[in-house]
Amino acid sequence: MKHKIIDPWGSELLESYEKIIKDFGLEIFNPKLFPKPNRIMRRGVVFAGRDLKIISDAIKHKKKFYVLSGIMPTNEKIHFGTKMVVENIKYFQDHGAETYILVADLEAASTRGVTLNEARKRALDFHIPAYVALGLNPKKTNFYFQSENRDVMNNAYEFAKKITVNEFKAIYGSADPGKIMGAITQVADILYPQFKERKPGIIPVGVDQDPHIRLTRDVVKRFKERRFFLPSSIYHKYTPSLDGDLKMSKSKPESCIELPEDIASVNRKIKRALSGGRDTLEEHRKLGAIIEKDMVFELMKQHLVEDDKELNKIYKKYKSGKMTSGELKQIACDKMEKFMGNFVKGVEQARKHINRLNFVKFK
Amino acid sequence: MKHKIIDPWGSELLESYEKIIKDFGLEIFNPKLFPKPNRIMRRGVVFAGRDLKIISDAIKHKKKFYVLSGIMPTNEKIHFGTKMVVENIKYFQDHGAETYILVADLEAASTRGVTLNEARKRALDFHIPAYVALGLNPKKTNFYFQSENRDVMNNAYEFAKKITVNEFKAIYGSADPGKIMGAITQVADILYPQFKERKPGIIPVGVDQDPHIRLTRDVVKRFKERRFFLPSSIYHKYTPSLDGDLKMSKSKPESCIELPEDIASVNRKIKRALSGGRDTLEEHRKLGAIIEKDMVFELMKQHLVEDDKELNKIYKKYKSGKMTSGELKQIACDKMEKFMGNFVKGVEQARKHINRLNFVKFK
Repeated sequence: MKHKIIDPWGSELLESYEKIIKDFGLEIFNPKLFPKPNRIMRRGVVFAGRDLKIISDAIKHKKKFYVLSGIMPTNEKIHFGTKMVVENIKYFQDHGAETYILVADLEAASTRGVTLNEARKRALDFHIPAYVALGLNPKKTNFYFQSENRDVMNNAYEFAKKITVNEFKAIYGSADPGKIMGAITQVADILYPQFKERKPGIIPVGVDQDPHIRLTRDVVKRFKERRFFLPSSIYHKYTPSLDGDLKMSKSKPESCIELPEDIASVNRKIKRALSGGRDTLEEHRKLGAIIEKDMVFELMKQHLVEDDKELNKIYKKYKSGKMTSGELKQIACDKMEKFMGNFVKGVEQARKHINRLNFVKFK
Repeated sequence: MKHKIIDPWGSELLESYEKIIKDFGLEIFNPKLFPKPNRIMRRGVVFAGRDLKIISDAIKHKKKFYVLSGIMPTNEKIHFGTKMVVENIKYFQDHGAETYILVADLEAASTRGVTLNEARKRALDFHIPAYVALGLNPKKTNFYFQSENRDVMNNAYEFAKKITVNEFKAIYGSADPGKIMGAITQVADILYPQFKERKPGIIPVGVDQDPHIRLTRDVVKRFKERRFFLPSSIYHKYTPSLDGDLKMSKSKPESCIELPEDIASVNRKIKRALSGGRDTLEEHRKLGAIIEKDMVFELMKQHLVEDDKELNKIYKKYKSGKMTSGELKQIACDKMEKFMGNFVKGVEQARKHINRLNFVKFK
C-alpha cells in the first residue's frame, strides 16, 4: 500500500484497518480534502472512504450534495459508533449537505422482528432526539420512516430484479428473505435523494455497514438509465472494547459503554479498563505509559477530549510517566460524567420538540 | 387414494392431476359442496382445493368470506387459465364473497423488470377490462395496485422475518431476491382482506400457483398472534396444448391460443389441432372418435360450450362416429369466433368505464 493511515496518537489496531482498506478496495481518508476536519477526521479515527474527491469538490465549489443515514430502532440505546456517524453527518450538514435521516422500520421488522409501531415509538422517543442531542441540526434535517416512503419501497422492488442470490450471498454471507428485503430497501434509501434530481451523496458508516454501500454501488452500475451518482462513503474505526478487543460489544457488557448509561456503571467500567500504565509507580514514572494499549486514552481521543492541545498535553504527561493510569482514568470519568449528563439532558430537550421536526411529507 | 377426480366426459390427463393432488396434499374437489357449480366445476376441470368446507359453510350460512386474485401485467394478452380464474372469482362473487383484485405491479417489477408505470398502463388498458369482460362484476370488486398499498408492503416485511431461505428454496426451487420480494408481497396480498377483520378467503389458482398458497399457509401458522384464517384455494386444470401436451404454452405458439387472438389465426390452429378422429371416414363411422385424445373437444368442454345438454349431444354424436372431426372443429371455430368477438367488444366497453371502478382508497 502506498499510503498509511495517519494516527498521530498511536493505536494498536491500525493493522486490522489497513487490511480492511485493502480487502474492501477503499481509499485511505485524507483529512486535507476537507475544510476544518472534525475531531475524528483529524485523529485518524475516520480512516477510509470511497469516492471522497467528488464530495470534497462539492463542498469546495458549493455544489449540491447530500448526506444520509439510517436509524435502526432495535432498542433505546445507541453505542459510540452511532455517535461517530452522527458527528460525521453533522460535519457534512455544516458544510452544505442536504441531510436525510430515515428510520429503518421496515428493516427492523424484516431482520429483527420489531413491529412497525414499536419501531416508530422508539425512534420518536429516543433515537431521533439522541441524534439531535449529539449535534444534528433538526431544522436542516429531513426525517422519514421507510414504511411511509412508497418511493423507496417501489424502487426497492425494481432494484431487486437485477440482484442475484449469489451476489447477495457474496456480499452479505447469507441470504435470508428478511435480510434481502431489508438490504435492498436500504439501497433504495441510499439513492432516494437522487430520485428526483441526481447529485452526489455521502454515507457515513462503520466498517460493518460496507456491504450496503457495495450493493448500492452494484445497483447503480446496473441501472445506468437512472443516471445515479455512485454513493460516496466514509468509514470510522470501531470504538474498541475496554478490554482491548477491536470493538465494543454488548456481548461483553463490562467492556462496553452504551448511550445513555448510568454514570456509576460507566465509572466502574472505566476503572477496570485495560490500561497502558506500568505495574509499579516507580516503573511507570521511569518508563511512562504504553499508550497504544490504553483503552481509556483511546476513548478520550475518540470521544471525550475535543481540543487537540488538551489531548496532546495529556498524551505527553501520560507517555512520560508524569500522569498515572489512575489519574488518567479519573479525568476520563469526570469527562464521561459531563458528557453523559449533557446527552441525557439533550435527549429530553429534543424529545419535547419532536413534533416540530421536518418529517418528509408523502402523498 | 380414496376418491377419484370425476370427469364425466373423459380426459387423458387425469393421472397427472391425481399425482399433483397427492404430492401437494390437496383435497379432491367435490362439486356437491357448492350450490349451482359453474361449468368448470361441474366438468371436473376444477379438480382440487384446500380447506373448501369452510368456504362451502360460509356460502351456506351467509357468513363473511372473500375471494382474491392478482393480475400480473406482463403484456396485453391473457390465456385460458386466467379465464378460468376469473370464472371462479365470479362464482364466489355471485355467492356472496367480498372480491379483491390486485395488480401485482411490484411483483412484475421485481420478477420481470416491468416498470411500475408500464404495469399500471397495461392493467388499466387491458387486464382489468378483460376481467370485467369475462364476467367480473366491477361494482362489487375492490381493485388495488400493490405499489399503493402500504399495508401490504409493510406486512410483507414483517412476514419476511420468519421465512428462511431454505424454506423458500424448498417451495419455489430457487431464491432470487426479486422472486423472494414478489412472493412475500403476494403472501401479504392474500392475507390483506383479513388485516382489519379475520375471515375465511378463497384463492382460485392454477396448479403452478400453489407455491404461493403453501408459503401463505406457512406464514399464517407462524404468526399465530395475528389469528388469520388459513387461506382456502381451488385449482383448475391447465387448458391443454392443441398438440396434446399438458399445458398451452407461448413457447409453442401454434398450439396455444391467447386472449385476444386474431380469429383467422385461431381457426388455423384449431384446424391443425390433435384430433380424436379416425384415419378414414369409414373407420370413424364404425369406431367413433377417441374423445380422450381430442384437444378440440377438450377446448369445447372447458371453454366453448356452456350448456351441459348441448355438450352431451356433441359428445354422443362424436363418440359414436356420427360427427366427424372436421365437423367438430367447425363448430369449435364458430363458437370461438363468437367468444373472441364478444371478448374484444367487452374489453373495449369496460375500458371506457375504467375510472368508475372501485379502486381501494389509501391514506
